[in-house]
Amino acid sequence: MDFKFLKDNELVVPAQTKIAMIVMDGLGGLPMEPGGKTELESARKPNLDALAAQSALGLADPVAPGITPGSGPGHLGIFGYDPMVYEIGRGVLEALGIDFDLGPNDVAARGNFCAVDAAGNLTDRRAGRIATELNVELGTLLRTIQLDGVQVFVETVKDYRFVLVLRGAGLGDALTETDPQRLGVPALPVRAHQPDAEQTALLANQFVDQARKLLADKHPANMVLLRGFAKRPAIPSYQDVFDLRAAAIAVYPMYRGLSKLLGMKTLAVPGETIADEFTVLEKNWNDFDFFYLHVKKTDSAGEDGDFARKAHVIEELDAQLPRLLALKPDVVIVGGDHSTPALLKSHSWHPVPVMLYSKFVRADGIAEYGEHACTRGSLGRLRSRELMPIALANAGRLTKFGA
Amino acid sequence: MDFKFLKDNELVVPAQTKIAMIVMDGLGGLPMEPGGKTELESARKPNLDALAAQSALGLADPVAPGITPGSGPGHLGIFGYDPMVYEIGRGVLEALGIDFDLGPNDVAARGNFCAVDAAGNLTDRRAGRIATELNVELGTLLRTIQLDGVQVFVETVKDYRFVLVLRGAGLGDALTETDPQRLGVPALPVRAHQPDAEQTALLANQFVDQARKLLADKHPANMVLLRGFAKRPAIPSYQDVFDLRAAAIAVYPMYRGLSKLLGMKTLAVPGETIADEFTVLEKNWNDFDFFYLHVKKTDSAGEDGDFARKAHVIEELDAQLPRLLALKPDVVIVGGDHSTPALLKSHSWHPVPVMLYSKFVRADGIAEYGEHACTRGSLGRLRSRELMPIALANAGRLTKFGA
Repeated sequence: MDFKFLKDNELVVPAQTKIAMIVMDGLGGLPMEPGGKTELESARKPNLDALAAQSALGLADPVAPGITPGSGPGHLGIFGYDPMVYEIGRGVLEALGIDFDLGPNDVAARGNFCAVDAAGNLTDRRAGRIATELNVELGTLLRTIQLDGVQVFVETVKDYRFVLVLRGAGLGDALTETDPQRLGVPALPVRAHQPDAEQTALLANQFVDQARKLLADKHPANMVLLRGFAKRPAIPSYQDVFDLRAAAIAVYPMYRGLSKLLGMKTLAVPGETIADEFTVLEKNWNDFDFFYLHVKKTDSAGEDGDFARKAHVIEELDAQLPRLLALKPDVVIVGGDHSTPALLKSHSWHPVPVMLYSKFVRADGIAEYGEHACTRGSLGRLRSRELMPIALANAGRLTKFGA
Repeated sequence: MDFKFLKDNELVVPAQTKIAMIVMDGLGGLPMEPGGKTELESARKPNLDALAAQSALGLADPVAPGITPGSGPGHLGIFGYDPMVYEIGRGVLEALGIDFDLGPNDVAARGNFCAVDAAGNLTDRRAGRIATELNVELGTLLRTIQLDGVQVFVETVKDYRFVLVLRGAGLGDALTETDPQRLGVPALPVRAHQPDAEQTALLANQFVDQARKLLADKHPANMVLLRGFAKRPAIPSYQDVFDLRAAAIAVYPMYRGLSKLLGMKTLAVPGETIADEFTVLEKNWNDFDFFYLHVKKTDSAGEDGDFARKAHVIEELDAQLPRLLALKPDVVIVGGDHSTPALLKSHSWHPVPVMLYSKFVRADGIAEYGEHACTRGSLGRLRSRELMPIALANAGRLTKFGA
C-alpha cells in the first residue's frame, strides 16, 4: 500500500495533532565481531530506551530486503513513498546537494573532470581528484559554452565533481552516460533511449565537444564525463498526499533539497549540531504538523568505519530527545534511511531498527531500542513506507476504510 | 498473494478435511493504561490458551498497516480476499444488514430521512433521529413512487435510516451522494461519474423529487438524503476459489449477508447466544468443509467502551470452544475482522491477534492467546488474507507449486 490508496479512498482527515520523525542517517549497524553489539546497541541512550518501552518496534526495509539504498530511495521510503516507483536521478541529487534551485524542466547531470591522452583515451576518470579550487577555475571556462535554445549551468560540487544543468523547453532525460567505467577507451557519446530525448542528447554531446576544446591544454584535467542525467521527478507533496504542513530540519543541502522536492518547508538551522536542530524544532513547533529532523553524522561515522563515533552520535541525539518529548508530540517515529555499519564502511542492505510512539500505539513493552530488540517488536519486518500510514492513524488523521 | 494464484496454478485439491474459522468481531484491543493488559489478555480463557500452545500465532492486518477497516473490508480480509480489490459499497452493506435479497443488477443506496426548511435548505440531516415507527409509515408513502422501467424498493432499517433499491436492466452505481454533509444548503443532485450510470442518476433524482413532494407536509422528516450507491460486487465464491462447501453461523443480518455474497450457506441460528451458534455448528458438522462462526458482541462491547464486558464475551466464547474441538476439526483459525479497543470506543487500525491450529502446523509453543503473545508468533505480522492459504495447506487442500 502507498499513499495513493489513502488518496483514492479519501482516508486522510484533518486534525490538530503533531508528528515528529527523527531520521538518523545510516542508523542500522552490525557488531564488529560475531555475537557482539551493534553501534546502536552499545550506545548509552536512556531516553531512547525509555521511549522504546512505550512504542511499537520493528525492522524496516527502505526499499526491499537485500537492497542497499542510496540516500534518495532511503529517505523516500521513510517519508512514505515507494522508492521503486519514485526515483530521484543522480544528477538531481547532486544538484540538490549544492542547493541548486532545479526547475521542473531542467535536466541535471553529474559531471567529473577527467584526464585523456592524445588519442582521447581515458587515463584517469577523476583527473587525480583535483582540488576544488581548480574545479572552480575550470568551471568558469565551461560556463562560456553556449548551446542553441537552452541555458547552461555548470556548478562546482567538490574535488573533481560538478553539476551540469540544461534549462529549456522540451528536454528529455532518457540519456546514456558518457563514462565507460574503464580506462584506455574514449568517453562514450550521449545517446537517447527515448525519442523525446534525442534533441537533448545532441545538446549534451555539443557540450562535451566544446568542453574538450576548452580544456585541451589543461592539466591534469582535460576532459569531462557526464553521468546520471535526470529531471526533477514529479512527486506528490506531503500537503497533497498526507494533508500535513511539513517542516524539514536538516543541516546538509542534499537532505534539505530532498525534503523540498516533497513540498516540505526547509527551516534554516543556525549552527550544525544536533542541539541546534532541536532549537529550530522548538521554535517552529506551533507552525507545522509534521517535523523531519535529520541526523547526518551517524552515517559519516559509519562510512569512516568509526564504530565508537557512530555510537557517540546516537548518544548525542539521545541527550536532546527530552526536548522533543517536552513538546508533547502526538506521534514520534525514530528510525533511519538505511544502514551504514561501521564494519562495512558503506551503506548496506540491513533493515533499519525503527520505533513508533503514540499514546494509542499498542506498546510492545520492550525497554530497549536496538536491532535485536526491534526484531521482537510488533511492527515486525515492514517496508519503511508503511510507517507513515501507521503514524497518521495514531495521530487521528485517517478515517475508516469501507463500511 | 491471493486466491487468484491458487486458481491460476490449480493448487487447490479436494480433501475430506474440515476448517473452522472463529471471527470475534473487533477482537484486537488496547490496555486502558500504559503497560496494562488488553481485553483479550485480561480474559480468563484456559481453552483458547491451551489451543494457542498447539498453534502458530501472529498479528494480522485486515487491509494494511495503519488502515482502520469497516466490517466489510475486515471480513473480506480474513475470508481470504484482498479488501483493496474487492469493495462492498455502503448501500449494499445496508441492504445485507436487513436481509434484503439483492440481485446482481440492483443498485442499493443508504437513505436518511431528513428535514429541510421552506427554501429547501437542510435543517437536520437525520430528522431528529425519528422513531422507527415513523420511518415505517413514511416508507409506505415512498413505496408508491413509480419510476420508468425499474422496480423501486424502500425498506426501513432503523430510526431515520432506510434502504433504497432500484431493480432493472442497465443500472450503474458510479453515482455521487445527495448528502452535502452540512446544514443550511439544499441536498445535492445525484450525478453520474461514469457514462453508464447517467440513466440511473436521472432515475435517482426523479425518486428524490417525488419523495420531496410526498413528504412536503410531514414533520419532522420532510425530505430524504441518499448515500453510498452500490451494486453487489462480483466476488468469486468460496466454492469456486477454495473448493469449499462453506457454512456461515452468524446472528446479525449483515454478517449473514456478507457470507452469502461469497456463496456461503447461511445457517439459521435459533437463539442468539454463542452457545446457540455452537449448537448449529454441531448439528451441521457433517455437511460442510468450512465453518465461519461469528461472535458479534466483542465489537459491541468495544464500541461501548466496556472493557470488562468485551473480556467477558471472550470468556463466553472460550467456554464453548471445547464443543468445537470435540468435533476434531483439521484446522481452526481464531481471529477477528479488526480491532475495536474499548479505550477508543471504535474500530481501529491495530493488527488483530490470530492463531491457526492444525495437527501439522509448526506450533510456536506459546501457551497464551493475546496481543503481546501473538507478536512473538511464527505467523509474524501478516495480512489477514494470507491466513486462508495457510489453512488450506494445513488441511491438505493445496498441492505443490511447480515441479
